Amino acid sequence: MEIKVVRQILEWNADCDKELKKLLNEKKVLMLNIMGSPGGGKTTFITRIIENLRTKYKIGVIEADIAGKIDAEKMADMGIPVVQLNTDGACHTEAESIKNILPFFNLDDIDILIVENIGNLVCPAEFDIGEDLKIALLSIPEGDDKVEKYPLMFSRADAIVLSKYDMKDYFQFDDNRVINNVKNNNSNAVIFKINSSKGEGINTFVNWIQNYIKK
Amino acid sequence: MEIKVVRQILEWNADCDKELKKLLNEKKVLMLNIMGSPGGGKTTFITRIIENLRTKYKIGVIEADIAGKIDAEKMADMGIPVVQLNTDGACHTEAESIKNILPFFNLDDIDILIVENIGNLVCPAEFDIGEDLKIALLSIPEGDDKVEKYPLMFSRADAIVLSKYDMKDYFQFDDNRVINNVKNNNSNAVIFKINSSKGEGINTFVNWIQNYIKK
Repeated sequence: MEIKVVRQILEWNADCDKELKKLLNEKKVLMLNIMGSPGGGKTTFITRIIENLRTKYKIGVIEADIAGKIDAEKMADMGIPVVQLNTDGACHTEAESIKNILPFFNLDDIDILIVENIGNLVCPAEFDIGEDLKIALLSIPEGDDKVEKYPLMFSRADAIVLSKYDMKDYFQFDDNRVINNVKNNNSNAVIFKINSSKGEGINTFVNWIQNYIKK
Repeated sequence: MEIKVVRQILEWNADCDKELKKLLNEKKVLMLNIMGSPGGGKTTFITRIIENLRTKYKIGVIEADIAGKIDAEKMADMGIPVVQLNTDGACHTEAESIKNILPFFNLDDIDILIVENIGNLVCPAEFDIGEDLKIALLSIPEGDDKVEKYPLMFSRADAIVLSKYDMKDYFQFDDNRVINNVKNNNSNAVIFKINSSKGEGINTFVNWIQNYIKK
């Protein structure tokens, strides 16, 4: 019973995802879907992307949270167009929700639309939301076994960001364990090592992103 | 559509939860449901509980993961009866899954059954699984805004464990923000501060747990 219904939802989501991808290609907007655990460093990572790219490109943000608007306020403080999506308990965003939010943006005036997904390594991996690139964060304090424990998330990501990388000295974290596990399931994924709090490693990431700009 | 189906699942789960609670009361088994983000420190926390209580009580563990058996192997290495539940993509455990697993344990010979739930701050909060106590971990590296962002998890927990507490000096983490937000939504919750890697603070927690032993 449960599986059947989930399939129906996923099929509906796939249609909506296609429609969004078509629209965003027409409007030449690059959409990034940023995923990771609660407290994995998604918001700080996004603020660093904005700081590095805002002089060259126009950036908008969709902040998805179960409740509240803590992260959206951080983006608004930076002067970035932002919409908060409250999922009211749901563990992921769906393409339909993004479709309903897009009219709040002037897409002709956006080059990069960043979606900060719900903090969750499980559910968001199942739902395409019109994005061009899926970016999965894995923070050092979470441990080096997470690729094995949450295989769908890391097998579907275009890029994997090892975040809070400055904490390497304080946690037993074996980069090679992560890299080898990613290679086994997702050999095309690019891996970045970033300390967002000081901005270390962000240059390599923003250089990579610029390959995908559409305008 | 989605909401209706979720309700059906939750109603079915509630029936199964009641049945499990009745059985575990008859067998005088205390069940703990340990929840938290991926890499929040659940497994190390459980190994510390075992170390502290195994001479007085008989302990069993159910390890729930999307895939693999990394954590179950750690428990087996300690000589503890353990069953690995692979949810194969599902973001939480359900009472029905626990019911199907219980026959693998001799409940007459178990005082405490610990369930390590899927690493996820969202979905596991919705499903009672026959437990006596819900214990939610929040690790210091995740940040002090998580009670506001994941309200259901922290409003339903009987105890909240601030884990990796030794990392307080390296992250901006305001205990009072967490404590005040917990008080607003869940005034009965007990808050513990624990560094599982060194065992600091675990004594207070295991003393509290012993109030609930049934045998």
